[in-house]
This record gives sequence, structure tokens and C-alpha cells, in this order.
Amino acid sequence: MTLRTDPTEQSVQALARALYQKAAEHKPSLFEAKDLLGRMIDWSLEDPSLRVALFRFVDVLPSLASSAEIGRHLEEYFARVDHALGGLVFLAQALHAGTLVAPVVRRNVVKLARRFIAEERGDHLIKVLTGLRKEPAAFTLDVVGEATVSDVEASAMQERYIELLRRLAKVTADWPPCAQIDDAPNGRLPRVNLSVKLSSLCARFDPLDPNTGSNVRERLRELFREAAKLGAAVTVDMEQYAFKDLTLEIFRGVAAEKEFRDAPHATIALQAYLKDAESDVGDLIRWARRQKRRLGVRLVKGAYWDSEIAWAKQKGWPIPVFTDKAATDASYERISRLLLHSNDVIDAAFGSHNLRSLAHAIVAAKALGVPPNGYEIQMLYGMAEPVRQAIIENGQRVRVYLPVGELLPGIAYLIRRLMENTSNTSFLRQTYADRKDIAGLIKAPALTSKPAQSPRGSSGEPMSPDNEFRNAPVSDYSRQENRDRFVKMLEEVHAEVKHLGRKRSSGQWLESVNPADPKEIVGRVLVTQIDEAEEAIDKAARFFPEWRDTPARERAKILLNGARIMRERHWELAAWEVFEVGKGWREADADVTEAIDYLEYYARGMLRLAGPRDTQQLPGETNVYFYEPRGIAAIIAPWNFPLAILTGMTAAALVTGNCALMKPAEQSPMMAVHLLDILRKAGLPEDACQLLQGGGELGAHLVRSAKIHLIAFTGSREVGLEILREAYTHRPGQQHVKRVVCEMGGKNAVVVDNDADLDEAVVHIIDSAFGYQGQKCSAASRVILLDETYQRVLSRLVEAVRSLKIGAPEDPRNAIGPVIDAEAKTRIAEYIRLGKKEATCVLEMAAPKEGFFVGPVIFSDVDRRSRIAQEEIFGPVLSILRARDFEQALAIANDSVFALTGGIFSRSPAHIEKARKEFRIGNLYINRGITGAVVERQPFGGLKLSGIGSKAGGPDYLLQFVEPRTISENTLRHGFAPPERLKAK
Amino acid sequence: MTLRTDPTEQSVQALARALYQKAAEHKPSLFEAKDLLGRMIDWSLEDPSLRVALFRFVDVLPSLASSAEIGRHLEEYFARVDHALGGLVFLAQALHAGTLVAPVVRRNVVKLARRFIAEERGDHLIKVLTGLRKEPAAFTLDVVGEATVSDVEASAMQERYIELLRRLAKVTADWPPCAQIDDAPNGRLPRVNLSVKLSSLCARFDPLDPNTGSNVRERLRELFREAAKLGAAVTVDMEQYAFKDLTLEIFRGVAAEKEFRDAPHATIALQAYLKDAESDVGDLIRWARRQKRRLGVRLVKGAYWDSEIAWAKQKGWPIPVFTDKAATDASYERISRLLLHSNDVIDAAFGSHNLRSLAHAIVAAKALGVPPNGYEIQMLYGMAEPVRQAIIENGQRVRVYLPVGELLPGIAYLIRRLMENTSNTSFLRQTYADRKDIAGLIKAPALTSKPAQSPRGSSGEPMSPDNEFRNAPVSDYSRQENRDRFVKMLEEVHAEVKHLGRKRSSGQWLESVNPADPKEIVGRVLVTQIDEAEEAIDKAARFFPEWRDTPARERAKILLNGARIMRERHWELAAWEVFEVGKGWREADADVTEAIDYLEYYARGMLRLAGPRDTQQLPGETNVYFYEPRGIAAIIAPWNFPLAILTGMTAAALVTGNCALMKPAEQSPMMAVHLLDILRKAGLPEDACQLLQGGGELGAHLVRSAKIHLIAFTGSREVGLEILREAYTHRPGQQHVKRVVCEMGGKNAVVVDNDADLDEAVVHIIDSAFGYQGQKCSAASRVILLDETYQRVLSRLVEAVRSLKIGAPEDPRNAIGPVIDAEAKTRIAEYIRLGKKEATCVLEMAAPKEGFFVGPVIFSDVDRRSRIAQEEIFGPVLSILRARDFEQALAIANDSVFALTGGIFSRSPAHIEKARKEFRIGNLYINRGITGAVVERQPFGGLKLSGIGSKAGGPDYLLQFVEPRTISENTLRHGFAPPERLKAK
Repeated sequence: MTLRTDPTEQSVQALARALYQKAAEHKPSLFEAKDLLGRMIDWSLEDPSLRVALFRFVDVLPSLASSAEIGRHLEEYFARVDHALGGLVFLAQALHAGTLVAPVVRRNVVKLARRFIAEERGDHLIKVLTGLRKEPAAFTLDVVGEATVSDVEASAMQERYIELLRRLAKVTADWPPCAQIDDAPNGRLPRVNLSVKLSSLCARFDPLDPNTGSNVRERLRELFREAAKLGAAVTVDMEQYAFKDLTLEIFRGVAAEKEFRDAPHATIALQAYLKDAESDVGDLIRWARRQKRRLGVRLVKGAYWDSEIAWAKQKGWPIPVFTDKAATDASYERISRLLLHSNDVIDAAFGSHNLRSLAHAIVAAKALGVPPNGYEIQMLYGMAEPVRQAIIENGQRVRVYLPVGELLPGIAYLIRRLMENTSNTSFLRQTYADRKDIAGLIKAPALTSKPAQSPRGSSGEPMSPDNEFRNAPVSDYSRQENRDRFVKMLEEVHAEVKHLGRKRSSGQWLESVNPADPKEIVGRVLVTQIDEAEEAIDKAARFFPEWRDTPARERAKILLNGARIMRERHWELAAWEVFEVGKGWREADADVTEAIDYLEYYARGMLRLAGPRDTQQLPGETNVYFYEPRGIAAIIAPWNFPLAILTGMTAAALVTGNCALMKPAEQSPMMAVHLLDILRKAGLPEDACQLLQGGGELGAHLVRSAKIHLIAFTGSREVGLEILREAYTHRPGQQHVKRVVCEMGGKNAVVVDNDADLDEAVVHIIDSAFGYQGQKCSAASRVILLDETYQRVLSRLVEAVRSLKIGAPEDPRNAIGPVIDAEAKTRIAEYIRLGKKEATCVLEMAAPKEGFFVGPVIFSDVDRRSRIAQEEIFGPVLSILRARDFEQALAIANDSVFALTGGIFSRSPAHIEKARKEFRIGNLYINRGITGAVVERQPFGGLKLSGIGSKAGGPDYLLQFVEPRTISENTLRHGFAPPERLKAK
Repeated sequence: MTLRTDPTEQSVQALARALYQKAAEHKPSLFEAKDLLGRMIDWSLEDPSLRVALFRFVDVLPSLASSAEIGRHLEEYFARVDHALGGLVFLAQALHAGTLVAPVVRRNVVKLARRFIAEERGDHLIKVLTGLRKEPAAFTLDVVGEATVSDVEASAMQERYIELLRRLAKVTADWPPCAQIDDAPNGRLPRVNLSVKLSSLCARFDPLDPNTGSNVRERLRELFREAAKLGAAVTVDMEQYAFKDLTLEIFRGVAAEKEFRDAPHATIALQAYLKDAESDVGDLIRWARRQKRRLGVRLVKGAYWDSEIAWAKQKGWPIPVFTDKAATDASYERISRLLLHSNDVIDAAFGSHNLRSLAHAIVAAKALGVPPNGYEIQMLYGMAEPVRQAIIENGQRVRVYLPVGELLPGIAYLIRRLMENTSNTSFLRQTYADRKDIAGLIKAPALTSKPAQSPRGSSGEPMSPDNEFRNAPVSDYSRQENRDRFVKMLEEVHAEVKHLGRKRSSGQWLESVNPADPKEIVGRVLVTQIDEAEEAIDKAARFFPEWRDTPARERAKILLNGARIMRERHWELAAWEVFEVGKGWREADADVTEAIDYLEYYARGMLRLAGPRDTQQLPGETNVYFYEPRGIAAIIAPWNFPLAILTGMTAAALVTGNCALMKPAEQSPMMAVHLLDILRKAGLPEDACQLLQGGGELGAHLVRSAKIHLIAFTGSREVGLEILREAYTHRPGQQHVKRVVCEMGGKNAVVVDNDADLDEAVVHIIDSAFGYQGQKCSAASRVILLDETYQRVLSRLVEAVRSLKIGAPEDPRNAIGPVIDAEAKTRIAEYIRLGKKEATCVLEMAAPKEGFFVGPVIFSDVDRRSRIAQEEIFGPVLSILRARDFEQALAIANDSVFALTGGIFSRSPAHIEKARKEFRIGNLYINRGITGAVVERQPFGGLKLSGIGSKAGGPDYLLQFVEPRTISENTLRHGFAPPERLKAK
């Protein structure tokens, strides 16, 4: 493709070259390898495995309390480095000295960090600022802190910002003026400039939660107010893509308020790597014009590139960033021109270390008639100092982005800087480390991939059976249109529900109630009587031969049809779940997504199983091995994943050719009705799958029936063990051994290691323990903390949970909804009473009296053998246990008759390895939440008394629903055998 | 490689060319396509699928009784032909007329057959012989008949030979002399020449059975005597390789007898395609010289080439024939010269249609000074008539090999002829159909592969785990050295057994007795007490973590070591089985072979299972799926495959990392002792596998123990169902759900279709029903015959069984040994008593009174619902059931609570397809025996109440012994993810 010839291209290159010549005289501090770490950074440029080890080590270092710990981590990380460079063997040996070198290493890392992050307290910050002013360079402060996980922490951050503003206002007030950095066309610029991440201003920044906006606005207003008072400027930083729309909305919302309408120095950062960026900038400019106000825009390339790609791929969402570096550079240049062109309302700031990008902005400004002080260049503290010097000397205003704060929370920032410096595509690396040709470095960005496309648009297309399986994406509630759509759907479904009227009791009818408002009837179904169940079994038995002999491909196609219909009805089904079982938006959405995944996955799995395969190649004999369905399957499903689990078990039974009798939980009959409807519409013959509604007695009848071949059950341990015993007790007239596929409960533990990333641990533990009120077999119900960090993690956890709102799940403000029914509420209340005797109750939140609500409860200092540490509570009750060390923590975690899920948070390679080996549970999660297993990705199921070792959504699952047969045919007839290639028909 | 230049090569080519010119003037009758069948043969030269259909159709045709049947088969065979040639579509359409064309087709096939096979009765034979004499050509008669399966049939064949000799002696006596074919250097040749297959002279030609030799010698002697009396000649034909050594031995034995020492015209056929042939000919010549007698040798290329390769590959034996056509041709020429060179004792006959081979023989004879009538050329009736004419005109004596008899038994012969004519490498096809260049056809055979190697030598090498799995070969008892070796081993083991002394009773001790001679104690072991069992469980539990964490590769290597030791002790182990459980030689041998296979197969299976696999490739997250052992496995094994099944179940448990407790059957404790010894020597840690000796109470204790994780059981249905119930009943303190791998009984049916090859059906049914006295879960215990062939199959079956000998299994004369114990004997006797009430007893053979012997019993007209048709008898008792048609036969076959093995004999593609679909059993065998499943080749296990759908020796078996786990690791740390290729460690 040919590039558009820009009239200023020549000037851009000339300026870039001139700046480069000047900058090239000095090497930036980072590339002057003076110490061990410096050398390692140098080496890591050439050895990816060393780079991984190094970054991970640096990442964990601040959380290590002792030299011994540092020494251990050094050994763990570097002993396993794949030494591409001979020299590193020496290094590794040196590092094996471990503890001895620990203080040196820590000193080095601190020194390294302090090249990028100023100390907040004491003189250091002032010294740095004074130094910058001498260059002269302006500054903006970025306060590094732990991720905010509670209201307490959000308020503390707000307080810290304000204090810093006040302190610096005082210090900078006395500085003599400096025109190059103080003056702008419209007057003097604030000397104090603060960059703020909105996520630090609320307990959990969540675009879905309307409270996020109001809480953040509240706190941001305070900052704006204080800044206005002090004559300081505030820049709103941009974080991950998921936060972008809400960040822009909050920024605009506050800026539009009367009080701030005329505040001249409100600035927002925008990321050129986003495919959305150009249109966002356009929107912002138009908005500013409508508002008739000036706005600052800091244009950066974007710092979450790796993460954005990973998150999007993990969720199956469109990748929001350009995956081509040149596309980002090109976007940056386009947006640069757009901002400069809008100089009437926009104060542009260009944040980059790329000389080409900066030269482009400078030349464009000139070309567009923007005065030299009508925009500014921003660069990061500690980075690319020679470039900065060259630009300052060129006369531009340069502002240095200066993080301040402690090392521990600053590490995330440090890692990003190291990545930037050592990434293959980094301008700095290419300039200083790789010493690339200048012409190549400063040429106009050339796209190697397709031009920008909007990330919007669904990727959840229905697929052909021949395509590879892909998970259906969950809904992205960071998008307003999705939120609007679901609100509308909730209203529609609620209207239907209201239409059904109030509860009335009748033995014939099963009434499904809204657990958040039990007076509301969500659905009403006829209870299946025993004689009707018998008829259903007989019908299934009569139809079975036909269904068995239906080609696997046809059966698979019905599942895929079902998946297609479910995609179409995704929002509707999720809305029904909100009302029938009290799931929150994301939980309901994920359940539907998982159901779609099961249909798609098992359909493809069946095609792999179908068809005989040759066991050996032999002349004169064909030997084939193939699978056939078992017969009639009873599907006994729970209410907590009312669509997904029922769909999964039923789809597995059906696609393998069994006839299914669905017996959903009494609490969620309507989701089964919806599923049946979808399967029928998808083309499933009526008798292949019948729906039997009822309670335990009906289930027991099916389990005991001599005509049932297979029971697929997910539910409690008690019922599961009973089913196993009953099913494997031979009945008169029974002509086969039954097969039971059985998933039972969990008492899942999360271990938090001393070196864990607590920001992540706290958030994931809360999600795992209190998501859907803890009513998941995978839920975290035990958290094991080590002595060293016990108190700190516990208090952060408690405060974070305390920030959660409780109420009806259709309101996305409520993180905690109701439990399923009155019985559950009573049972959980009893466990809470028991827990108060057995342990210390550190949190017990109030809950609405109407509806089946139970407020989150946290017990601390729970004894490992106590009942609340051993029994499955299935509610929002979390037990915190204490362990001496990681080893003991694992022992406690394993001390359960359950073994379903579990997790650890650790950054010790040895501990992670130890957990992989010794934390014996069905699904182990490392450094992430322990619920939400994804089909195919995390085959799901437990060991011990959690299950029989099948794995839903895994490669072996369907095998349980079939029986293998072997056919051996002698093809030799009177010495004549068909030729080999004709042998297998 | 350069060919040795033969001095006569030029003459050979000159003669071949001359003969060719003469022969080429006429096309042999077969290639003159005058009718439909002729055209089809033509077409089949170019379309392999048509060739298959055509040959198979011709093969089955004589057994079809009606036009309707012929029509149906025509449709079935030709509707599915893959029509490579457009013209065949027309043909297929014509053939779809089915019944209409049936008479025409049958007429055509009869006509075709009669080109090759003369009618025995009436004038036809004499007319053919007279015709030949006019050419002039001599003859040798080959009497085609059904395979001999009983003594009655053997005697009938002998009778038939003698009658034919007498009849022809009379006819030919009056013929005027004809020097070219009557005269030889040593006088006038017999005009009547009979070719005899020794397998037709006994009930079952088996080199292992010493009675075969004596019985055949007895009958052959009669023929020799009669021939001598009539002045006729007898040629002993050569059949498959497995019969060769014994055939030579019998021939030499009789020829050496005083009575026949001077008989001038005893001839034996030898096959040049055998790698052994050259040394066999050498031996024979030396023997003749030592005997100072003349011998006839007919040198042929060999007619079982396809079968020999198939059989050898199926058994894992060395391929006895040259796989390169040229190697056979070269061998033929070498042996030709050798025979002519030995003209002092050998009358050579060269049987071939290959002009080059014949020209070579003629030229060599001349070169070696053998007079023209000092050897002869033999050719097949109906084949290559122009070649024959050319050779006769060249002055040679030509003898035509003339099959006589009925079409049905002659089909095997016809198929061989058609194959020969239509094979790619056939000289005739190349000459007449493909019209190859004469120079290429007559050039000296050029080897394309390595020179001849002896087929002797073991192929049962131990293998590295990285090699592909190959089945261990069973011992080839057609080889004298193997028979000798086993006799010696039996003596050694018997000496050990005798050393143990007589039975003495004691509760502490379990005494294993020889079921053929219960006074003999085969072994004495201590019974494991319950408290000792508890100790063993605890020991296993303590050792389990170490064993589980032992790398899979190491565990696999121990199995492979075990396999190596078993190979070394193969003969010894088999000998122990003969004495401990009363197995015959082959049965004992196969059991050891199967045990080796399990070790080899599961070792490799584990390597495939071992190691985590990525479930999906995602940035920022690794997701792995892997398997871990379940814990402590109780192996409860039966006595009927005392090594194989115990080894299989134990090896599966061990290699997957479980600790095993072996509980062998009370009847076969010693085989378990041997296995344990082997595993220990192979490097298995002591506590990984412990041996507990005892009865049902001990087994029940293990099954109920809360500490046992897995029970692998093979045995009766009653015990199996009891184990399932007990194992799935949760016990106090039990921390897991047990897994039961369970194989139970069978009541296996064989259906014989009207178009079945009865020669094969009868033999395989007997093997399947009475092999190891019917004490296999896979044994045939029901045979379902159709009305049309009921009586005929029944009487052949009864007579064939009647020919079996009963007695101690160490004597290979005895096809039927003892049943396992007194209890079994009683139980079987009761069933026999019952059977006599329920059905007609058509055979009840006497058995020795001492020892646990039960003579074979056959019941006919058994009702499908009677107890003897429904219950597993586990002894040498066979029920014959009657069905109206194939459909009903399948329904009867399926009318059982068991569904383990079964078989059909049919040559109807539609019936075979129907059985594949509707005969729902674990292992279906088509046109072969229904026992002896081979590891990997025929994964073994039953459905319904025969088992739980696992398949021993199959790809899914090991999965039952493991539990899957999933580990999901978030590898993204502060935005930094390892590059993709480093992601999965």
C-alpha cells in the first residue's frame, strides 16, 4: 500500500534527525550499565527468559520482607533461567549465593526504582522538582499507591492527593518564573500539576455499577475544587480500555458542572493505541466546542498494550488496541494534527519518547499556526533524558511525568517502564541498545496490517461444526449500549413476571419465586407425577434406537442450532436468571455464555468421538473401535447455574445419542423450560429430551429406575453420595450397570503467600467468595493467610467487602443479591451463629429483611477443624484461617473432604510449583480468582468427595456418556484380502 | 546391486522368446471376454474395488441356494462398488435387476469354474482327461472338498481318494501309449497321478498334536498302498507354511517305511516363495541320498502368498515368504538348478506358467545333462493354454494339474486362480492383459529388496518406551524346537510341583491344586488375614505419595522391564499355567503373551497420558490439564487368565501411579506369586504392589475399606454387582468416591448365516466354545443356526467336537483339559442335567473320572429363554438355537442380559452391516473366532451386565485409573506477560 504523502514529511524528518543528533550524544541513564541490575537489563535485551525472570523478580521484590526471602526468590527465579548467553551462567552462580547478595540486590532495585519514582516524603521530591525546573522542565505528579479496594482506601487516596497539592502549592509558590515552562498563550500555567487515576478514587471502579460514577465524581470534584483554590492543574489519567468510556464520562461530567465550567486546566489523557482513540478525540473536541471551554488533552501511546491484548483474547472480545506498532504511531500522528487543529479549544500535550512522533507534533504545530507555547511535550521521569534535553534546547515546553510514592505500589509502574525500555519495538531500545539506523527510526509509520477498525461489533458468531471451538464472549458491560440493552430486557422480563401475579399454593403446581422478592412468582409449572415420569421413561426408551442411530453430525448440528438461538436470546435468558435465581448481571450473563459454550464444545467433541477408528493396520483383518450411547440419561441439575449446568449435562447426554430426562432443581424450573424450548426450536425431536419438574422424590425415582442407564448429577455431597449408592444397587429387571456422572460440593481454599500481589489477591478473593452470594460449588469459603501478612490482608478484605452493596440483583449497584430460598437463608444463618461460637466474627453486614438476603460475613482465626472450616455453607460466609508458613497453609487447604477448586496468590516460583504438585484439587487457580471455569479452557470438576473425577467442559467428559464397542472382521476369504487401502470402508 | 551373470542366461532368454512367440498367437481362454463375467474380470484388472466385490461374490455364490439369494448378494456387492470406470455404472444398474439375472450369473460362474475344475462324477472328467492326452499332456488330480473338520470327514476323504484311484486306473489302462508323456529314463510313468493335501486326512491338521502325524500317516499309508497296487503315483501337496514341517516329516516318514522304500513315484510339492525352501530342498535331497531312493519333487511358486503375509503379520511372526516377487522367481531358478543337479535321486517337476521360469528350467536341464524326459513341466488346468501348447510342441513332458469336484468346496481353488490371473505381478496378466514388453517379462529376476533371510528367529524383542507398541507374538508350535522346548519346561515345572508333595489341609495355608490331578499341589501360600490386609493398605497409603510422584516414565520403564523378564520366562510361566489352572499349551502361551502386551501397551499409554497439556493458547494465562492417580487400587482377579488379567489390571493401576493390592483368585495363587516376583525384579518398589492371598472374604474386605480408592475386578456378574453396590456405598471416614473397573460374565452367541463359509464357521465355533473348556468370559456358549443350514452345521459341529481328545493339558493330544475345580465340575454337571430337561442333548462326551474333567456337551433346539440359553455356565457346554432367518438370529443373540462378545459368520455385506449396527455387544467378531482379543487390536470389554464399558487393552482404559486436574495460572504481572513461547514451562 502506498502512504499518503504528507506535505510536512520532509520537515518532520529533518527535525527528528536534528533532535536525534543532539540526543545521541548522551545515553539515557538506564542504558548505562553500571551495576549488576543494569547489566542484567542489558542482557535481558537478548535473552527473553532472563527478561521474564528479571521482570518478575523486580515485580515481587518490594513485597519481600527479609534478605532470606530475597535470596530465596533470586534463586528461584534465576536458577531456572534458560541461559542463552554463556555469561549468565556466571551470573546465576553468583546469584545462588542468594541471601548474601540480597541486600545488594535490594539496594540496586531501589536505586533503579528511584530513577523513575520520587520519594513522596522528605526532601527527595522537592530536590527532584527543583532539578527539573533547572533544565527547565515542568512536572506533573503521579501518586503511586496500592490499588484501591475499599471506600476507606478511596478516601485515603483523595486525602493524599489534596495534601500533596497543598504541600507543593506552598513550595512552588516561591519559585522564580521561567517563561519556557510557565507561560502559555492564555497566561501563566499552574506550576503544580497532578495526574489522577480515577480508579484510585473508589472502592471498585466498575462501569456497570452506577455508584462508581457518583462516588468518583464526588471525590474528583473535591480535587478539582482544591486545585482551583490552589491554582493547580489536574490531569485525569487514562487506564485500561474497560475504564475508558466511564472515565471520559466522569471527566466530562465534572468538567461540565457549573463550578468547574471555567476551570482552565482540566486535562484528560487519551491513548493513541486504541482503535477508538480518533473518534473519542473527535467527540471530545466537539463537546468542548459545545461547552465553549478549553480542555487539556494529553496524547500518549498507551501503556497497557500487552494486558489489553491478553484481556481481550481471554474474554473473546475484540482487541481494542492496534496490534501493529506502526498503526499506533500513525494514529498518534493523526490525532496530534487533530488536537493542534483544534487549538481553539484544546491545549495539547504530547507524551512520548519517540523522536519521530514528537518531531511530527512540533512541525505540525508550526504548520497549523499553533504558537510554540500553545502546546507541550511530556516525558516520563527517568526516561530518555537526552531526548528531553534536545527538545528543551529546541525551545519546547517539556513537562515531566513524575511518579511519587513508595516502592511496593510503584512496582507496577516500574515494570511498565522497564518493558517500554526493553521491548523490541521501543524507540529508546532501538536507538540506544540496538543502535538502529536513524533513517528507519524516523521514517513515517508504515502500516503492515489492515487499517484501523473499530473494536465494536460482536465476535459471538454462531459457528459451523467444522470450525474450531471458540468460547462465546461474555457481555461487555463497560459499554453503555449493553447496559441499556440489559436494563430494557430486565424491564420486559419483569413485566412478564408481574403479569403472573402473586403466589398461590397448590400441590400440582410448582411455583418459582424471585428470591429477592418472594412474593413475586417468576414461573409456574406442573409437577411431574411418578406415573408420568414412568411414561416419560418409556417414551424415551421407545425413541432411543432412532436417536442413537441418528448420525452424530445431525445431533451435533441441533446443539449448534441451540447455541445460535441462545446467542439470539442471550440477554433475555440472563434477565430470567436475575429474577428466578437472584443472579447479578455478570453472573447471569456468564451462565448463559457457559451454556452456549457447552453446546458448541460438546457438539464438536462428539464429532471427534464419532465414527469408528482403526485400532491397528493389519492385512486380512479390520479392527475398529467406536462409541455408542448408553441409553436413557436422567439429568439432575442444580439451581445455581440454572442454565449452564443443565445445558451442559443435557447436551452431553443428547449429542452422544442418549435420550435425556431433565429434572431441574425445584428452585429454577423456568430456566429448564427455556432450555427445552430452545432445544425444540433447534430441531431436537420431542422424545429425545423430556422435562420432568419436581423435587427430590422425583429425582430419587429416576435414580432407582431399572430403565435409566445414566445419571448426570450436580449438587450437594449428601445427595450425590445417595445417588451413587442407589444407582449402583442393582434392581430387579435391570439389564445394565448404571453410570453416574456426579459433581458435588466444595470447601475451597485460597492461600495468600507473603509475596502475593495483595491488590490482586483481595479483589479476586472477594469475587470468588461473595460472587453470587457464595452459592457456587467453586466459591472460596476458606482463605488461608500467613502470619506475616495476616492482619494486613484481613483488614483490606474486610474493608473491601464492607464497601459492597446488598439488594435486588437487577440493580447493578448491588454486588450482593439474595440467597436462593428461605431454607438456604436459615441454613446460612445457623452457620453464622455457629461461626460466632467457633471463631471471631470480623464482619457481619446488614441485609434487607424482605427477600432471602444474607449480608456477607467474615470469620477470622477460624480453626481448621471447626465446622465452618469443614462444611459447605453455600452462602456469603468466609472463613479466614491462619498459617505459620506456606507449607502449613497448603496442608490446611488440603485438609478437607472436598477437593474442588482452590487458589494461591504467590510470586514465588517454588511455591507455585509446590502448589501445582501438592494442592490436590480439581481446579487450581494461581494468582487469579477461583470461580468461573471456562469451557475447554478450564475443564471443571473435583476430586475426593467433590466429584468422581469427570471434568465438565473437558476432553474426557463425553466418554462417560458412551460405551465403547470393538468390531473385528476377518477380511481374508479363501486367501483373498482386499488391498490395504480398500480395507476400511 | 549387480546380478551374477549366469552362463546360460542368453539361452534362457532365447528359449523364452521363442516359446513366447508361439504362445502369443493365442489368448488363454480366461482373457477372451465373451460373457458378463469375462468382461467383469477384464474390468476388475483396472478397478480394485470391483475386483474385491467380484471375488467375494464368486466366493459366496456356490453357497447360495436360491435365485433370490443370488440376486440379493449381487446387489449388496455391486451396489457399493466404487465405480472408477464409467461403464460400470451401467453394469451396476443391470445387476440391480438382481433376482432376474441370478440364473444367468450362476450359469456364468459355473461355466467359469468348470474351466478350472472338472466334474468328478459322470463323463466330464474322463472327457477332460482324454482331451489332455491328445495334446499330449499328462495329468495329476486334485480332489477338491470341504475342509476336513472331523474324523468322519477324514475317513470319507481317504475313501474318495481310493475310489478315484481305482476308477481312473481302470479307465487309463486301455489308453494307447504316448512316449512324450508316458516314458521316463527309468521306465514307464504311472498314468494316474493323484495330488493329496494332508490336511484333508485328519480332523484337524495341527503340528502341535502328535495324533495329527499318526492319524495322517495311517491314512496316507493306505493311499500309498493302494497307489502301489494300482501302479499310480501320489503327490503330497504343500499347503500353508504352518503345515510345512509336519507335512515334510509325514511324507518322509511314510516314504521311509519299509513297505514304501522302493515306491518310485512318491512326490512332494515345495514352494519357492518360502524363505525356507532352498534349505528344505537341500535337506530333502540329502535325505533321499541317505535313503538311497528316488523322490519326486514338484517345485511351485506357492499359492498362499497373501494369506501367509496376513497370518504372519496378524501373529507378529516373521513373514515366511519373500515379499518381493522377483525374490520368489530367483529362488525358483536356484532351486530348479539344485533339483536338476540332483537328478540322481530327484525327479523334478516344474509347476509354473511363467515362461521365463520354465525356459530357465529347460535350459538348465540341458546344461546339466538331464534328458528331456528326465523332468517334467506342470501347469494348471484352464490356465495359460497357449504356453502349455508351446511347451508341448517344444517336446517337454507337460502334466496338467486338474482339480475335480464340486463347485462349493472348489471355490477356494477358483479364487486362487482368479487372483493369480488378475494380480499385478502375474506373468499371465502381464503377458495377455497388460501386454507388457517381452524383454521385461523374460529378463532374469532382479531383486529389489534384500536377499533371502531365514524366517526363523524371534521377533519378540523387548522394546524401548519410545517405540511404537507391537504385540508380542505367541509361540509358533508348528516349529519342532518350540515344541521340544515346552515339553522340557513342562517336565521341569512338573518336577517342582511333585517336589511340593501331597495335599494337606490347613486354614493358614491356601493350596493350589492341579485340576487335572487334584492330588498334586502346585503351590502353597499363606492366607492373608484381615489385620494383615489392613497393614498392607496402610503401607500402600504411606508409600502412595512417593509412587505417585515418581515420573511416569520411570513407572513405565518398570513395566517394560517386567515385560522383558516375562519374555525371558515366557515358557516357564506358560508351563505353570498348564499345571495350576489346566490350560492347554496354546491357551497358556497366549495368556503369557497377553500379559506381556498389557505391560508394553499400558506403559506406552501412560507416556501418552503423562504430562500436562495446554487446553487453550492464550496470552497472559496458562491452562493445563493433566492426570493423577487415584490412590490405592484393589485388584481382584480371576483364575481363568491367571497371568494376563491380573497383570493387565495391576499394570494399569501401577503405571498410572496407584499403589496396588493384588488379590488373585484362590484357584491361581501361584501365577500371582510369579507376577509379583517379576515386577519386583523389574524394579517395582515393594510397597507399590502387595500380594494378598485369600478368598471372597478378603476381597469383600478390600472392597468395603474406606481407604481403597479403586477396585479393578474381573469375574462373575454376581460378585461384580455386589462389588459395585458395596463400593459405591459410602463408608464412615471415606474421603472420596471409589471407582470400580468391572468386567463380568458373558453368554456369547455366534450366528451362522446361510451363506457362511462353513469350513471356517465350524472350526472357529469349536475353538470359541471349547477352548479352555469354555472357561472364558468371551467363550461362545450359544450358536444360532438358521433353518436352512441348521442340520448340516449341527452335524458337522457334533462330529468335529467328537474328534477332540480329553485329558491332561500337558499332553498336547488333549484339546480338552479339566475345569478349574470340583465346584465348577458340579455346577457344570448340574447345568448338563438341566439342559437335558430343557433341550436335546446331541453330544455328551465321556471324560476321565479322576481330576476335574467334564466332557464337551452340545444341546440342540435350545429355547432362547431357557436357563441354559440365558445363564453363564462357564464350561464346555454349547447350546444350539434355531432361527428362522438372520434377523431373528440377531434378535436371539441380543436376547441376553450379557453383552460381551459375539460373532457372525456371513458373506452378505448387508447382513454384516446389520450385525455391526445391531448386534450390540462389547466385542463383535465377523467371520472369525470370538475369543482371544488382542491388546490394542481388539480392546476388550462388555456392555449391559457384562461390564461397565471400560475396555481392557484399549485407548481409554487407563483413564479409569486416574483423575484429571486443571491448573490455571494468570501469568500477567502488572501488565507483563511472558512471551507465548515461554509461557508453558
